[in-house]
Amino acid sequence: MAPTTPTVVVPIDLKKKPNEQKLTLHNRWHPEIPPVAEVKVGELFRVEMVDFTGGAIKDNDSAIDVKTSDLSTVHYLSGPIKVVDEQGIPAKPGDLLAVEICNLGPLPGDEWGYTATFDRENGGGFLTDHFPCATKAIWYFEGIYAYSPHIPGVRFPGLTHPGIIGTAPSMELLKIWNERESELEETGLQSLKLCEVLHTRPLAKLPLTKGCLLGQIQEGTPEWKKIAMEAARTIPGRENGGNCDIKNLSRGSKIYLPVFVDGANLSTGDMHFSQGDGEVTFCGAIEMSGFLDLKCKIIRGGMKEYLTPMGPTPLHVNPIFEIGPVEPRFSEWLVFEGISVDESGRQHYLDATVAYKRAVLNAIDYLSKFGYSKEQVYLLLSCCPCEGRISGIVDSPNAVATLAVPTAIFDQDIRPKTSKVPVGPRLVRKPDVLKCSYEGNLPTTENPGARI
Amino acid sequence: MAPTTPTVVVPIDLKKKPNEQKLTLHNRWHPEIPPVAEVKVGELFRVEMVDFTGGAIKDNDSAIDVKTSDLSTVHYLSGPIKVVDEQGIPAKPGDLLAVEICNLGPLPGDEWGYTATFDRENGGGFLTDHFPCATKAIWYFEGIYAYSPHIPGVRFPGLTHPGIIGTAPSMELLKIWNERESELEETGLQSLKLCEVLHTRPLAKLPLTKGCLLGQIQEGTPEWKKIAMEAARTIPGRENGGNCDIKNLSRGSKIYLPVFVDGANLSTGDMHFSQGDGEVTFCGAIEMSGFLDLKCKIIRGGMKEYLTPMGPTPLHVNPIFEIGPVEPRFSEWLVFEGISVDESGRQHYLDATVAYKRAVLNAIDYLSKFGYSKEQVYLLLSCCPCEGRISGIVDSPNAVATLAVPTAIFDQDIRPKTSKVPVGPRLVRKPDVLKCSYEGNLPTTENPGARI
Amino acid sequence: MAPTTPTVVVPIDLKKKPNEQKLTLHNRWHPEIPPVAEVKVGELFRVEMVDFTGGAIKDNDSAIDVKTSDLSTVHYLSGPIKVVDEQGIPAKPGDLLAVEICNLGPLPGDEWGYTATFDRENGGGFLTDHFPCATKAIWYFEGIYAYSPHIPGVRFPGLTHPGIIGTAPSMELLKIWNERESELEETGLQSLKLCEVLHTRPLAKLPLTKGCLLGQIQEGTPEWKKIAMEAARTIPGRENGGNCDIKNLSRGSKIYLPVFVDGANLSTGDMHFSQGDGEVTFCGAIEMSGFLDLKCKIIRGGMKEYLTPMGPTPLHVNPIFEIGPVEPRFSEWLVFEGISVDESGRQHYLDATVAYKRAVLNAIDYLSKFGYSKEQVYLLLSCCPCEGRISGIVDSPNAVATLAVPTAIFDQDIRPKTSKVPVGPRLVRKPDVLKCSYEGNLPTTENPGARI
Amino acid sequence: MAPTTPTVVVPIDLKKKPNEQKLTLHNRWHPEIPPVAEVKVGELFRVEMVDFTGGAIKDNDSAIDVKTSDLSTVHYLSGPIKVVDEQGIPAKPGDLLAVEICNLGPLPGDEWGYTATFDRENGGGFLTDHFPCATKAIWYFEGIYAYSPHIPGVRFPGLTHPGIIGTAPSMELLKIWNERESELEETGLQSLKLCEVLHTRPLAKLPLTKGCLLGQIQEGTPEWKKIAMEAARTIPGRENGGNCDIKNLSRGSKIYLPVFVDGANLSTGDMHFSQGDGEVTFCGAIEMSGFLDLKCKIIRGGMKEYLTPMGPTPLHVNPIFEIGPVEPRFSEWLVFEGISVDESGRQHYLDATVAYKRAVLNAIDYLSKFGYSKEQVYLLLSCCPCEGRISGIVDSPNAVATLAVPTAIFDQDIRPKTSKVPVGPRLVRKPDVLKCSYEGNLPTTENPGARI
Repeated sequence: MAPTTPTVVVPIDLKKKPNEQKLTLHNRWHPEIPPVAEVKVGELFRVEMVDFTGGAIKDNDSAIDVKTSDLSTVHYLSGPIKVVDEQGIPAKPGDLLAVEICNLGPLPGDEWGYTATFDRENGGGFLTDHFPCATKAIWYFEGIYAYSPHIPGVRFPGLTHPGIIGTAPSMELLKIWNERESELEETGLQSLKLCEVLHTRPLAKLPLTKGCLLGQIQEGTPEWKKIAMEAARTIPGRENGGNCDIKNLSRGSKIYLPVFVDGANLSTGDMHFSQGDGEVTFCGAIEMSGFLDLKCKIIRGGMKEYLTPMGPTPLHVNPIFEIGPVEPRFSEWLVFEGISVDESGRQHYLDATVAYKRAVLNAIDYLSKFGYSKEQVYLLLSCCPCEGRISGIVDSPNAVATLAVPTAIFDQDIRPKTSKVPVGPRLVRKPDVLKCSYEGNLPTTENPGARI
Repeated sequence: MAPTTPTVVVPIDLKKKPNEQKLTLHNRWHPEIPPVAEVKVGELFRVEMVDFTGGAIKDNDSAIDVKTSDLSTVHYLSGPIKVVDEQGIPAKPGDLLAVEICNLGPLPGDEWGYTATFDRENGGGFLTDHFPCATKAIWYFEGIYAYSPHIPGVRFPGLTHPGIIGTAPSMELLKIWNERESELEETGLQSLKLCEVLHTRPLAKLPLTKGCLLGQIQEGTPEWKKIAMEAARTIPGRENGGNCDIKNLSRGSKIYLPVFVDGANLSTGDMHFSQGDGEVTFCGAIEMSGFLDLKCKIIRGGMKEYLTPMGPTPLHVNPIFEIGPVEPRFSEWLVFEGISVDESGRQHYLDATVAYKRAVLNAIDYLSKFGYSKEQVYLLLSCCPCEGRISGIVDSPNAVATLAVPTAIFDQDIRPKTSKVPVGPRLVRKPDVLKCSYEGNLPTTENPGARI
Repeated sequence: MAPTTPTVVVPIDLKKKPNEQKLTLHNRWHPEIPPVAEVKVGELFRVEMVDFTGGAIKDNDSAIDVKTSDLSTVHYLSGPIKVVDEQGIPAKPGDLLAVEICNLGPLPGDEWGYTATFDRENGGGFLTDHFPCATKAIWYFEGIYAYSPHIPGVRFPGLTHPGIIGTAPSMELLKIWNERESELEETGLQSLKLCEVLHTRPLAKLPLTKGCLLGQIQEGTPEWKKIAMEAARTIPGRENGGNCDIKNLSRGSKIYLPVFVDGANLSTGDMHFSQGDGEVTFCGAIEMSGFLDLKCKIIRGGMKEYLTPMGPTPLHVNPIFEIGPVEPRFSEWLVFEGISVDESGRQHYLDATVAYKRAVLNAIDYLSKFGYSKEQVYLLLSCCPCEGRISGIVDSPNAVATLAVPTAIFDQDIRPKTSKVPVGPRLVRKPDVLKCSYEGNLPTTENPGARI
Repeated sequence: MAPTTPTVVVPIDLKKKPNEQKLTLHNRWHPEIPPVAEVKVGELFRVEMVDFTGGAIKDNDSAIDVKTSDLSTVHYLSGPIKVVDEQGIPAKPGDLLAVEICNLGPLPGDEWGYTATFDRENGGGFLTDHFPCATKAIWYFEGIYAYSPHIPGVRFPGLTHPGIIGTAPSMELLKIWNERESELEETGLQSLKLCEVLHTRPLAKLPLTKGCLLGQIQEGTPEWKKIAMEAARTIPGRENGGNCDIKNLSRGSKIYLPVFVDGANLSTGDMHFSQGDGEVTFCGAIEMSGFLDLKCKIIRGGMKEYLTPMGPTPLHVNPIFEIGPVEPRFSEWLVFEGISVDESGRQHYLDATVAYKRAVLNAIDYLSKFGYSKEQVYLLLSCCPCEGRISGIVDSPNAVATLAVPTAIFDQDIRPKTSKVPVGPRLVRKPDVLKCSYEGNLPTTENPGARI
């Protein structure tokens, strides 16, 4: 009678590579990637997934795998899954697909994850101009808790969630993506100024046949070539959901995704044991393999009913999310603030990205006074359950962004005290993160004030 | 014996204007505005304050006072307050001033507030290009709850906090502010691009003698003239704290402020009964008069010990905050997402401001399906306890920002349902917000997708 | 326009005694005590109140006032308040009176409270056989926080609430009370056995003319004499609500009280800054004077609609409560367990009272290892926000009760550690509570196991 | 490298009976039941377990298995597990064993549970005098949520925990247990009065060879006979922990157990998907099979250091618990109150058991007005995350107990409203619970007031 053991619709064998899985994975968004499974509304089903690199980054003693990782292959996604109603009629464009996350977790026997920063010339991260080297920290899981041999002295409960969940785009939507991202790639350095403030990174990742995996479509076939040249990369979140990296999408959450193609073609991947708002190091959550137990509903005509386009076409929409009721309780938070004045002292106009950068830099410097290396804190703030807020976005010229860190994750009291920070018996956090050298030529941002 | 009834060090008489108060208020930041009171560390003291406009916006039936409000006079602050240690030695530059908020609330007999949007040509707001008109909603307080005759159907507990709390800048810091903001004013429209995406608003508010109130310094004297020409406006948050608008700084919170002048010269004002992250309408919290019960500690040498400059000088620092343990519990949140693609469909690069704008626009359109006008929702999202998050800041080219709204503040279920949004018996929220016409010439941003 | 400043319907002048107040207080329950005020449904009104002893226990250096306190005079209540609907029609017997607590707090200038244990022969407390002496601790308030010079090293935010809120009983209900309590007084020692396990205390407090205060009814008149001989004492909670001591009835809570007489005749008093579940020392919360801002609704016929009598008559009902959404967040709790085996080792049958007694004793002994005297902990557990739970009530023969203490209220880590409890540098908590000698003859319960 | 996949030290094969498992289970407490496994401190290990009846109650359409269940065989426990330190030295009597619950959940393929009431003459429950029949409800799990076909209209997230976790008693402690429980069985009906108030149930469950399972000790051997005649039944919680039924002992919790025998001999079982405080129906949580991931520490000498005996010997102690930080957030609770006056109207003296009984009865009657049968609510309050509190235990003669029910678990608004409870379109909850007839002769408690 019990109907609730979830059916595994996408199984993963961790001993195999992404392209060797029973239901081959995919790492691009395209309407013509065929579904690998079909589920009915109301049915509880399980989707297993590899970590976003498909096992390329390993539980070992070096960050060289991070430094040399091939970003053309990420993120490996499980699916697409076709969703049909009780009568077998597929979800249709214009519907809203409600996906409930009933449960999730690591795959048995694989209870570990990693947080890393890419090398500045191979992906970088939010603060890559300050931290150009590839680094890595391994995390082990003890049930709900994670701890790292590379960041001793912290331990926290995970708020596990899928980094990526989305529906397939229609050709029309895909075309919109490719055009606007191409234009950015071509003209962004001239027309936008934020990029220079942040750092030099590729502005967009355009379609690329290299590294492309398209599920059941055989590599090298004409069909594969056509799709590979058109299919969108998975890095940015877009109208179809995708890489939205909302850290609270854990057990009990619901995601309302717009449907652009028949059957919705739901894909998911990039499981995170825990992530901080912003996922600042880029390879930034505690990345892991895992499983999701899901249940779908179709809201017929729901896009028109519930979503309003923000842009030139009816496709310029965004998903809606409901956060689940089970989260770690933290009662105390230490909050770091940033304003939109950059490291050179230059005033920006209501720029939340610059403000958040300064808030994160403030937090890193502060916490490094308590016995951590800055690299340890940078990785920690990327993956621990910290909250990044836009506190003020109207008080020109300064946007105010804040980063709130729960104090309970540390094994010491990190609050300011009237007495000085302990210097003698200060805890030194050893070993440090795994780290490679940076051999590129890009300049590191100076923080002259910090030297004083 | 009981030593804990707080001494009122800055009293307010609500029947008087800001310049008639016993201890005259001030509305600029300058090191030479003399303290009006002195407190010892450990002493519990009360600071009363007017609302940020000093009573210019009233509990009446029109938004004309908003449309014509004189922004040269805001924000009226109480203080400065000189802080000394047990031996009477003042806080010194380089110290950290820890300010605990022990209690706060409205002034008796004045249990109401307002949320407004300024006219596009007189201050505007985050979405002024979409909502150019001056609007106003009045809120009445029933203990911890606020409700508005102009936004029927919502009621929520306040997370009351001071919008502004800060120390006086030194002359050196003031000079830094004035220089960088002048440069922005002069060259920003050319060198930055975010401003055009947002909307046309004054980029910065530079020192202005008009409307200037300087506490005990008599208007029109040579001293007044000198200071008025140098003193920084209070709108943006800066290194001294100031208008940081952190909505969670309520009972039990602590603020660690850098000290730049002898005695610290603490000022505070701009009380908010409640605010949403971002305070999007600009006059955007539930603005009110009120009182703060505070207690100070001095951390000698704490700036160097705990803060790291982010910029060219040791003064380029930011305060640190601790959030108090008492907040309204909400168990369910509906989350709206935005990506850094603007209303014209243009792709921006990791721009959290653009992403947050889209998230707020999405939330407004969604909630307006439930019987609210868009103006009602815009005001509501500015002042209710919603959370604005930077969810992803690394997945180029899209920043992902989210706006989480607690579902319990509505008297109807606002979640998407398989059945359609009720149309027949749908609640119509009347009356609407108070609204003036917009008579300017600036264009309104079109949202072509929404017309379909 | 703002209609929300609450009208003070029962004012208190703290310089006056209970019988000198403008609207004389009362300390008994009786249908014929006339209302002192009238309120309409929907109206926000303020009720001020003295502490439950009417100022008999003072902020001084001795517990002698506790030892000699006259319990015949407590609790002093404000009211009764007659409640009428929009048309002026009073609440009627059979209605349900919904009372919302919009706000509450101490009276200005009186921001302090006390926790005490009565002498074993003058009231006692839950553990009076272990702690026979009168003791007292003073608490001072710093906004939301309380701290005590007599229990150094703890500080916690209050969850302030009225200990007593209730409607007037009808004569019929009053008769039921008097009969069942008389019977207990007469036969309880023989027919019940729990009393001997607990300790020797008066089983019930029957009507008593001594100390009786009846509001506007003049002492000594025939009417006064009649009522004084019939009126119920205020100590126990009963069908009309009354002294229910539910610690979470703070801001935003609602109380649904049965109505037994025309107008409902609402009375309230016994304000608590904070209380632990059980209020174990009896004079056990942080007792204080204060104000309540209330708003009433009448649910016509609501008793029949919503309440079901549990007993021989339709009057055997209990109120219903809704807890408000604003409470201090605690993330960590240490939990002490008790089972229904008493200090002599005797097994009781599913007796939650015995189990809770053991849980409280366990907590006292545990916490006293961290530098507190047992008296300090006993007072602390009575007034801090600890939770007393009935965890198991079916696993015969043992009831399991638990007492959960939030760890954040201590300035040291009170959790068990692999290393021993620090003995050398252990914090010694001085001064101790104020304490009188016990001069009675009742035996103290031995705890032979604790001597080993 | 990853050391954190837990080793399964007690595996369960759900297709086998308790006495056929690879490591035979046990259902008694005795020092001579030999350990089936050994773990080191710091090691993460997994213990699998059957449901407390070992599969006797099934997912089917009848409650006959509940009615006829053999309580002599419960609870089936996994273990004992011997705990040693890093050097292999076992835990010793006098130590404290700290057990952390790192993770837990249902066994894969067995995602269901049940809540039941036993027949009045076969175990009964807290309200067996009101509800004498055997009843059963099946629950299915969807990730963190449970729903029941027999109690439609409710759904809640589980706070999963082991009902039983404990160490083996020493012979001395076992003797204490047997003596005090025998005395109760013999003299309790005379000397205690609570039992008659509650109902007629066996006062204690004394050692019984029938149904006894002793792990690796072969049934029928002389050793088996000796132990079976001495070994304590598992129903009550006692000094060794055992059946404490603390509903919050979920992920991240720690249990500090006294050690009475070499190696500690930890046993656990009786997994609950969710339970209400009190577990009122007795078979009262959502009972299920499951797994626990645990990690142990030994605090040498910790009993003396941290525990204080409450009784005649040093063995009269209780465990201490720490509650984990991950729990479902509920923002609204409806609270039912009970006072120590029983259904006949008789006054009891500070009797929390009687007060809690009345609170539960009040809650059942109230909720049954919303379309549920009383049996549905009785089962629901036994297994949903409701909180049972001892609110007042000193205001003689009434103890005040409260039962707080989270409103969010219902699909309708269960709060009292000014308008009447909907009668026309009222939801009728069908089907009802599975139910057997009661064929015994014991009287049902009348509630005369409810008939009116």
